[in-house]
Parts: sequence; C-alpha cells; structure tokens
Amino acid sequence: MKVVIVGGVAGGATAAARIRRLDEEAEVIVFERSGYVSYANCGLPYYIGGVIGEASELTLQTPESFWSRFRIDMRVRHEVTAIHPECRTVTVRSLDSGESFEESYDRLLLSPGAKPILPRSVDAGVPGLFTLRTVEDTLRIRTFIEKNHPRSAVLAGGGFISLELAENLRELGMDVTIVQRPGQLMKPFDPDMASFIHARMRKNGVKLLLGHAVEGVEENGGSLRVLLKDGKALAADMTVFALGVSPDTHLAKEAGLRLGLKDSIVVNDRMETSVPDIYAVGDAVQVTQSVSGEDVLLSLAGPANRQGRIAADNICGGDSRYRGSQGSSIIKVFDMTAAVTGINEQAAERAGIRADKVYLSPASHAGYYPGARTMIMKVIYEKETCRLLGAQIVGYEGIDKQIDVLATAISAGMTATRLKDLDLAYAPPYSSAKSPVNMAGFIIENIADGRLKQFHWHEADTLPRDGSVTLLDVRTEQEYGAGHIDGFCNIPLDELRERIGELEQGKPVYAVCQSGLRSYIACCILSQKGFDCYNLSGGYRLYRSVREDCGCADESFPCGMDRTVSR
Amino acid sequence: MKVVIVGGVAGGATAAARIRRLDEEAEVIVFERSGYVSYANCGLPYYIGGVIGEASELTLQTPESFWSRFRIDMRVRHEVTAIHPECRTVTVRSLDSGESFEESYDRLLLSPGAKPILPRSVDAGVPGLFTLRTVEDTLRIRTFIEKNHPRSAVLAGGGFISLELAENLRELGMDVTIVQRPGQLMKPFDPDMASFIHARMRKNGVKLLLGHAVEGVEENGGSLRVLLKDGKALAADMTVFALGVSPDTHLAKEAGLRLGLKDSIVVNDRMETSVPDIYAVGDAVQVTQSVSGEDVLLSLAGPANRQGRIAADNICGGDSRYRGSQGSSIIKVFDMTAAVTGINEQAAERAGIRADKVYLSPASHAGYYPGARTMIMKVIYEKETCRLLGAQIVGYEGIDKQIDVLATAISAGMTATRLKDLDLAYAPPYSSAKSPVNMAGFIIENIADGRLKQFHWHEADTLPRDGSVTLLDVRTEQEYGAGHIDGFCNIPLDELRERIGELEQGKPVYAVCQSGLRSYIACCILSQKGFDCYNLSGGYRLYRSVREDCGCADESFPCGMDRTVSR
Repeated sequence: MKVVIVGGVAGGATAAARIRRLDEEAEVIVFERSGYVSYANCGLPYYIGGVIGEASELTLQTPESFWSRFRIDMRVRHEVTAIHPECRTVTVRSLDSGESFEESYDRLLLSPGAKPILPRSVDAGVPGLFTLRTVEDTLRIRTFIEKNHPRSAVLAGGGFISLELAENLRELGMDVTIVQRPGQLMKPFDPDMASFIHARMRKNGVKLLLGHAVEGVEENGGSLRVLLKDGKALAADMTVFALGVSPDTHLAKEAGLRLGLKDSIVVNDRMETSVPDIYAVGDAVQVTQSVSGEDVLLSLAGPANRQGRIAADNICGGDSRYRGSQGSSIIKVFDMTAAVTGINEQAAERAGIRADKVYLSPASHAGYYPGARTMIMKVIYEKETCRLLGAQIVGYEGIDKQIDVLATAISAGMTATRLKDLDLAYAPPYSSAKSPVNMAGFIIENIADGRLKQFHWHEADTLPRDGSVTLLDVRTEQEYGAGHIDGFCNIPLDELRERIGELEQGKPVYAVCQSGLRSYIACCILSQKGFDCYNLSGGYRLYRSVREDCGCADESFPCGMDRTVSR
Repeated sequence: MKVVIVGGVAGGATAAARIRRLDEEAEVIVFERSGYVSYANCGLPYYIGGVIGEASELTLQTPESFWSRFRIDMRVRHEVTAIHPECRTVTVRSLDSGESFEESYDRLLLSPGAKPILPRSVDAGVPGLFTLRTVEDTLRIRTFIEKNHPRSAVLAGGGFISLELAENLRELGMDVTIVQRPGQLMKPFDPDMASFIHARMRKNGVKLLLGHAVEGVEENGGSLRVLLKDGKALAADMTVFALGVSPDTHLAKEAGLRLGLKDSIVVNDRMETSVPDIYAVGDAVQVTQSVSGEDVLLSLAGPANRQGRIAADNICGGDSRYRGSQGSSIIKVFDMTAAVTGINEQAAERAGIRADKVYLSPASHAGYYPGARTMIMKVIYEKETCRLLGAQIVGYEGIDKQIDVLATAISAGMTATRLKDLDLAYAPPYSSAKSPVNMAGFIIENIADGRLKQFHWHEADTLPRDGSVTLLDVRTEQEYGAGHIDGFCNIPLDELRERIGELEQGKPVYAVCQSGLRSYIACCILSQKGFDCYNLSGGYRLYRSVREDCGCADESFPCGMDRTVSR
C-alpha cells in the first residue's frame, strides 16, 4: 500500500506515524509545503515572546528523525498542486527546484490546514505586516523584532493567536492594540465571560478597540498606518493579522471533493471525503459539534491529532470513528486563564436548544490554605432535560482542571445535576470538599427542583423601579456602601429574619449579594414566608464586572460566609 | 419538626445548614463534643507546620455565626451519651457543667465521626504522645512544639495524616521517622506507585521504617522511647499516632442500630440507619465502594459533606440518594503530588474482578513550553469489558487535574478506550494536544485490539535468562550504558530494522525502553515481522523506581522521541 499525505504538521504527522505502526510494509510519503514538519504550532507566539527560547524547541521532529524512526518519507518544501482522483496521482512541485512531478497513491490523506484570513483591501506586501501560522512566519516576526525593535504593534483580530501574541509582545515591552470587529474578544466565550478577559488584557496594558475593523495598512516613513473602517488610523511599528483562518482547500475543490462551510472538506466519521480512498483531517475539514450536532469549523490541535489517528486506522483497514469536536479550549491571558468547553449561549440558541445557565464563583482550593483564588464559572445546560451543554471559566488557579472535568462530564452525556455526585480528589492545597463542579451541580439541582429561581445580570437593570417589586441587597452595610446596583435596598442577610416585616408581602423579591450564595439563602428564607423570590446568579461581582467591563475575577475572597457554607 | 444532630463538623454541619435552607420552621440542635464546629479538619496538619498561620482560619464558623445566619443551635462541648429510639430522645451531658439532660427529637442525625486508633499496649497518657483529629489535638501539638522545641518525632502509621504531618514537621526542621506496619505507605495506592511516595519522603529527609510496628511508648528523661514490635526502640522528643481511625459508634451500638465493618453504622442510600427516623453520615458509616460494590470505610471530607446534604434532603421529606464512594483522594508529598481514584489492583482482586493495567509517563504540558514535568500514571480497567476501575498518579504538576478527569470518567461508567476520544482543553502551558488521559486511552485501545501485548515490572526479573526468549532494550547506547535490566541486550530502536537479523526467529521478544513508548514501536515493527513481542509497561523508569524504591518520577524528560510521538 502506498499512502500519500498532504501536510506534515499535526494531523498529517500523527497519521503518518500511526500508519507505520500499523503497517510496516506501507510506503508513506508526506509532502509539506513549509520547511518544517510536526512542529509546535501552538507554541509559535511563545517563541516570539522568548518564553520558548530556542527555535529548535518548536521543531523537535525533522524529516531525518521521521525517517530513522518510522521510515516515513517527509518531503518538506514540496507543494501538492493538483489531485487526480481518476488516476490516483497527485502533482507535486518542489519549491526549491521548481520542478513538478506526479506521485501515485493507493490512499491519499489531506491535511492541508488553513490559511490566515487577510482582507482584500490589505496589501500583504507591506513591510512590517505579518500573519502567524507557520514556523517561517514566526521566524520572520522574531527576526523583524530583533532587527527593528518595534515599539508598538496593532493586532487585527481577537482570537487565540491574537491574545497570545499580545501577551508575548507586551512581555517584550511593546505597546499593543487589538482591533476586533465584534464587540468582544474570544468568540467561543459569551460576552459576559469575555468581559473578564477584556479586563485582564487592559490591566496588562493591552489597548482594545472592540467593534472596529482594520481596512488597510500603509507605510508611513519606516512605520505603519493601520487604517480602520471608520476612517481613523493607528500608528504602529508592526501589525499582525490574526483574523482567523479559512480552510486551505483549493486542491480539494479542484479535485471535485464535496465541500462544506467556508469551502471546508466534508468528511464522514471515518474521515473519508466524498471521493473514494481520499481522507482528510485537521483545520481543513468540517466537523460535527458534538453537543449541538451542528456543522462547524474548529482550528484546534487536539481534534486534528485524534482525526489523524482515526484516518490512519481506517487507511490501514480498521474501523475507527470520530465522535465530533466538543470545542474544549483554553488560553493563558497573562496571569489569568480562560477556558471553554461545549457550546455557549449563542450557539445553543442557534441550534434551537432552550438553555439555562448558572454562574458561581468558587475558590480554587480550600480557603484556609494559602493561595486560594476565586474563579468565575458559567455552566450552561438544557432547561428541560438538564443535559450539560457547555461551560466557561475564568480565573487564576486550577481553571484547566475544572474545564476538563466539565468537558469529561459533557462527553459522557451527564446531566448537570449529576455533577453534585462527582467524587473528586480533595486535599486543602488542591480543591475544596465541595468542589467547584459539585457546587455547580448543587445549584442546578436547586433550580431543577424548583427551590431556586434566578435572574441574571442582564436583567438587573430592567427590573421595574416603580415599587412594584422589591429589590433587595443582602450584603453587609459596608459591602453595600462600597457599591451596589441602583434601586436595590439593603438588609444584611443575618438581619433578614428580624426585618422581614420591612418587605411588602405580595411583591416579588429580587435578591442580590456578592456571589449569589447569601442571596440564595435569603431566597430560601423569603420563599418559605410566602415571597416569590429571585436570586441574582453570579451576584453583584458578575453584574459589576460585565456592566463595567472591569473584570473583578481577581478580587480576593468575597466577604463573610460566602466562602464556607454550601448550597 | 425538631432535628437533633450529633456532631457538628463536616457531615453534621452541612446537614444542619441544608435543613434550614429547606425548612425555615424546623428546630435544629447540634451537639458537638469538642469546642469547635464545622472546622477545617483537613487543614490541621498545616496549622501545626505554620502553613496556615492563624487558628482562626481553621474555625471560620462558630456557634454564633451558625445562629445568626441559620438559626441553628450549635452546642459545643456537649456530648450525647445515649440514644433512646423508643421515646425519641437523647441524653446529653454538658462537658463544662457536668450536668446531663434529655433532648427529644423527631429526626436524629448521627455524624459522630471516628476516633484515632491507639494500640492497647500504648499508654495514651505519656507526655509528648499525641493523636491528631480535632482542633484541640492540633492546638496541643502546636503548643507542645512551641514550648518544648522537640527536635525529633516518630509518627506511627503511614496514611494521609501521618504523611501530611511528616511534611509539616520537616518544614519545622524536625527529624521525622514514620513507622508503618505494612510494607508501604498510603494503602490506597498499589506498592509500585507507593514507591514514588517513599522516594519523595526519603529525599526530603523523612526516615521510613516500613514493615515495623510501634508497640509502646516510654518516657525517657524528658524524651521518649518508642518501642517497636521487633524489640528495637527509637528515641524521639514527641510521637504522634496516626494509625487510622475507627468509627465512633458506641452510641449507635448501644441504641441497637445495625452495625457493619468495624462497628460502623449501616445505612441505606438515603442515609437512613436500621432504626426509623435515625440517619447517619460521615466517617462513622459504612459505604458502598462505587466501583467494586464492596462495603468499605472511607474517612474523606467530600463524601461526608455530600452525605450530610442527602440526609438533610430526606429528613425534610425529599428523596436524595447517595451513589457510593469512589475513593478519590490526593495528597501533597512535599513538592510532589500523589492521587488516586477508584480501586487499586488489590481491591480489584478482592472483589473478584479480572483487571489489567497500563503505566505511562506523560508530560504535564507541552514539552516545548517551560516547566513541563513528567508524571507517572497507572490506569486499571476490567480486562473483559475495558470498564475503568481506578487510577493512580504521581508527579509534580497537574496531577489533581488528571485524577479528576479520570474520576469523572469512572463515575460516568466510561470504558477505558473512550478516554482516547475525550476532547480536553489544550494550550501549551496547560496540557498536550494528546492529553495524558487520551494517551492512556490510546494504549488501552491498542491492547484491547490485540495490537499491543504487555509485560510488567514485576515480571521482568522472572523472565527466563536461558536464551529461550529475547530480552531487548531499545534505548540508545548511552541510556543502556547508564543502567539496564540484567540480561537485556541493546539494539537502539532506530537501528532495529537493519539489525532485525540479530534476533532469533521463533523466540518471544520482551522489549524495554525508558517509558514504554519506543519499545511499543519496536513491538509494532517486530510483531509484523512474525515475532511474538511483549512491551514493558511503564518502561525502565518504572521498573527501576519500584525495584530500587528510588522514585524516579522527578527525572526530567525521557530522551529522544518518547516525548513527542504518540500512540
């Protein structure tokens, strides 16, 4: 069997090695357009910032190492320029010699990846304008920085690459501005959770121009003028376009493969394309969002690697199936971490799923053990069935743990109420006896059982201020004095039983505290006294953070008993 | 409704607060024998070591705070001395006044906990001899240390409390010896994984006397002589007995409640005892091990808290069920972390489950991003069905994450092969594109598919050295030269294809590398050439660590391509 693979990075390299392990006799040839194979794609921004010191760290694998270990013929700087399914050949051009040749295959695997999006109005040839996708791009940017010592950068786009690059350029002392057309960074997050990311970026000196778009870039006497759609311009010494990627599928298109979203390659769960004996994996393929069932495009390393392994199994006569992409991802935002899994509110709505949500702000580990930090967790679930749909978390410690536990629960098809039963590992340096995920389960169970009714930050300002409802803040006088939602009166929780007579019977009560825990207890008290009571999920902390886009996730603990008594 | 609760720590305090939230009218009285309620049990060793500076941090809740927030009558220093189910009363003695009185109840919840085990031959009254269970015990030990400046301590027992205390006493500069009757510390771990804990303890100056038992303690001129069963004696300035606990259930016994293992209280999944309207939770009750189905005793804070909430639900007329205890737990061992979930090999054998296991040593995060550390992971699963049974992990970073992901997968009833599909959050600072848990899934799938046959560290020495089998080490010459298993010859993996003629056809091959990854590739090559090939799971690293009890988990990365190419 002769297998030709187009693309030698994540999916392609994984598939090549797996094919060899499964079939010692197969001939495997990989054509990679760039000069590098199996490189550390996700590490590129960190090399620019110097966190990763040596370029060799990014490119641990070489064509030579692949040959000596796997007898895989990795041909870098070779571009496949055409696929001929009818005669099972590809046309390949050597970028160094310029010569073209035909290569036959029994099985063809496409792992061409995606290419950075550049607006048509932008001239890619302007010196100091970059995209960041390959090792070559990375070396170009680092060399430019070392040579030109730019003091300012404009980054177009507000996704993973842009944010990681912003952090790394800030670490180099540069002035960094992110221009992002949507009103928020990091679209996998809902706007409320993104507000914590905005705050952290700003706190670390990154300027955010949200709701703006870059239209062009001009040279301006050794520097650049970055032109915005609204006619304004930004001066910068360099600019990087990180507006996302589009599947690099002209080959597939010309060969008549069935295409999907944004010309991505359509594959089945065996990673087979519409053409016999041609498989495809990675950023170029359309996948099923495993929670919503929607067709989506996701540029993530984990799925690409798993797809590569599955394609290899099937190429070698096995029957492996891809279960879809859940979209779990995580990003370091300076000292903060933000992570997401499953679908967000907008995606749920798009998919026609009636979703509910809870917010909570648990501690990363036992509050009495040094170093505990508050995180903000949002869990989204299907209202009717309590099926888990997604989660988003921001914070400073253990965010990766909580998201992976939730990702696993979602993958297992758990209901949100089952989270309360999870028997997770606890010792004071690592967690709490009731873990953050357990707490989410407790809250959702209270809602499902009808014991807890919520309202949300985006509803707090629109509640009537005409006296027809009671707006109640149950924090301490000091907390209330330091800032509260307009129109809310203050009765501290511990005085509520005595002062319950101050509340007018028959009127609904909307209760608020710092995190949503004390106000929940207030709701327990009041609803048993006949009040129709609603709890502000996520509390004043979330409300304020989103309203002011100020990101209070780095606040130290909420005061009082919020931190110790459970749901 | 009047609810009386015996014991105001984890389970009892949680239940009390939940009862109030569910029922504003209930009368709730908690009798707690010690002077403290709802204290941070798991933090006690860290207060002794000064990691937690203030005693007030351990006791955030007070009877006053419980009253003001929950109207719960927390009576500390009150001991319930008898239960009278027939007339629904308990007899209570005030430890301060010495007076006894009767208290009636509609529902009674027992959360009496457990008491430290002390051998009969030991005189508990010897000055400088301690147990560690309550805040009072903790204050006694800290006061003793501050006053007497002991320079040495002998700890009897090798479980959680002992190890955490050992670390804290070492941090105070003391000479610490642990005497443990079994041949290993930390019985929830299998001996192979415990060997890494031994190594870390020794590296940090803790002396381990494994396979020894303390028989008595004598005063010896201001110091102590700790007498061992074999007649030897250890000199020490203080000694702490941490031999485990036994359920504190004399009350339940005298009241005729059905008892189980070690006189623990038998409860159903609603936390109801055998006597109507009496519930029990926490360390005093027998629980079902959720993986094996066995009856077990587990002294863990998480389960106690969850049980308290469930009992409260049922006391208030609900129907909540406890799903059993999975035994997830974690311990800080100086700079190392060790964690476990589910059942270990011994428990599987006891339960009659035919188990298999894999070992792997993945990096905590992408190897090219600074700070990645190797961890050792053991995953145990049912041979026939691939049902996940348990996992044990030791290492330095992200151990809590990996164990919680595995705990969640086990709780969901996942098969081990499904681990390969988990879509977990990846970015270089946090994980790898193929996460450690994914890798475990890959390996187990290879075994389940018959593509990989293993042998284990405990079999390596017993393989015939008579030439009837080939013993093959595929590491580099340098690695081999630095240490190898006796009788194994060396052909580096990358030379294997050329030198395959050196292997005698027809003989089984047992292959070894550093981590088990390169030898797996060797097995792929050899088995396709007709060899019956077995791979040493966990590699030479695990073998050496267990054999020499030397714990190489802190080694930096394995060399070569172990670190980058997947399964």
